Amino acid sequence: MPYATEDNITELAARRWATAESPRLAELMTALVRHLHAFARDVHLTEEEWMAAMRWLTETGRISDDKREEFILASDVVGLSMLVVQMNNRFGPEATPATVLGPFYIDGSPAAPYGHDMSDGAEGLPLFVHGTVRGVDGEPVGGAVLDVWQADSDGAYEAQLSEVDEARLRAKYRTRQDGTYCLRSVVPKGYTIPMDGPVGDLIERTRISHFRPAHIHFLIDEPGYEKLITHIFEEDTQYLDSDVVFGTKEELIVPFRRHEAGTAPDGTTVATSFATAEFDFVLQPRT
Amino acid sequence: MPYATEDNITELAARRWATAESPRLAELMTALVRHLHAFARDVHLTEEEWMAAMRWLTETGRISDDKREEFILASDVVGLSMLVVQMNNRFGPEATPATVLGPFYIDGSPAAPYGHDMSDGAEGLPLFVHGTVRGVDGEPVGGAVLDVWQADSDGAYEAQLSEVDEARLRAKYRTRQDGTYCLRSVVPKGYTIPMDGPVGDLIERTRISHFRPAHIHFLIDEPGYEKLITHIFEEDTQYLDSDVVFGTKEELIVPFRRHEAGTAPDGTTVATSFATAEFDFVLQPRT
Ligand SMILES: [Fe+2]
Ligand SMILES: [Fe+2]
Repeated sequence: MPYATEDNITELAARRWATAESPRLAELMTALVRHLHAFARDVHLTEEEWMAAMRWLTETGRISDDKREEFILASDVVGLSMLVVQMNNRFGPEATPATVLGPFYIDGSPAAPYGHDMSDGAEGLPLFVHGTVRGVDGEPVGGAVLDVWQADSDGAYEAQLSEVDEARLRAKYRTRQDGTYCLRSVVPKGYTIPMDGPVGDLIERTRISHFRPAHIHFLIDEPGYEKLITHIFEEDTQYLDSDVVFGTKEELIVPFRRHEAGTAPDGTTVATSFATAEFDFVLQPRT
Repeated sequence: MPYATEDNITELAARRWATAESPRLAELMTALVRHLHAFARDVHLTEEEWMAAMRWLTETGRISDDKREEFILASDVVGLSMLVVQMNNRFGPEATPATVLGPFYIDGSPAAPYGHDMSDGAEGLPLFVHGTVRGVDGEPVGGAVLDVWQADSDGAYEAQLSEVDEARLRAKYRTRQDGTYCLRSVVPKGYTIPMDGPVGDLIERTRISHFRPAHIHFLIDEPGYEKLITHIFEEDTQYLDSDVVFGTKEELIVPFRRHEAGTAPDGTTVATSFATAEFDFVLQPRT
């Protein structure tokens, strides 16, 4: 192998990483080398900028822990996460589209019956989300599990809180035989991404809005259908068209209707005013 | 701003980061967005691969500390560091070329007189490196400071050792008025990069050699000349043509001649066999 020069180094590095035992790793690493070098060449990256990038990457790793995923956040705010989601979830136009998972999913939420209140005492206007889960041909999907999670009214997820005994604002609901589901929670608020780390530092040097519109996360993974990871967004909320992680989709925006005290969608009586959102999840059949 | 789709998200993200207050940051971030997205699209990055990348980046940050710079190592092994060095140090063909700084430089090494032994008792064959520092027009550079550092015979730099009282295998020499310098040390060995972290994990999945050829680092930063960060490499050492960080340059390879006990280049007497290397550093005038 010849010694490296400014002209040949990209080719040398790509050839070297092409020796990966796995053909896929070889493909990934050679492409990464080429694109990374093309970036550095295009902008004529200076040594000071390179060093600043090394410091930024190191800090981004060092601030990360069980409760904080700063690299996922970085990927989110440059649109990489949403790009990967779109490329890998090319559903038909009738199916509910996917959006970002986000860094706050907790595996193993408790099973909750139809209508269960998952708010665990969190403050806020009671919200009932209901509808059906079905396939693109209209067939109801009975027994489908909806894994649901959302932020509290301070914009904090359970994953961000230090001491939580019970599952908080997260639960697994199961559709009835006719595909219908109903969950009870509180109306979520839009929230800022964490701004006290390296990602926030970068965003503060731009005019980018660091908020997400109010939303609730859903994960539905049923045999015979493509796994669906998505949100619903409140129609009248702020930041829909400036979502810092590019997660908003037209098809996922739902009116949250306000009601006086009375009968909820699950047939129970609510003594205070409350809100309802109706949304049907339409699953893409697995091919 | 429209909602994101697979087709428009790169443009949306680039436009958003173009709002950076500093025009240079705007340029860097929009280019980064475009190249990062182009990489993900070219390889059709899967969600599992994206998540593995997030984990790898986080681990690479978390293993880094004062003594360990895993991201610089990552940049080194994909040839990015050497590319950045080459782009930013385009010296004339007569000047000594630059190569990578590496992660083991320690600022503030002690001043050492002509011929000083910087080995601090480290084992190995005594080595005298001597020559002149001059400009490309041949003029000697008197009083030039050569900041020198190298690994010990285990391949460990002082920066990697936990407890060191004295400066070890590093010192700042000053040329005499005629531009000559002489340092005493021990013959370095080629060494492996640290293989117990995320960078090593990747390299182990390839046929890439994880060694560097034996070398000594020099930094010369004199008024009127471009800063020179470089190595000299031993001519008869292994790994010259497979340097894991792409640092080898033909012009930096020097014979390390072996001698019986006798008179060293600085005029002192050496009671054991020893080695000498003669190298002239030729500085590029600052324009
Ligand atoms: Fe969220
Ligand atoms: Fe080194």
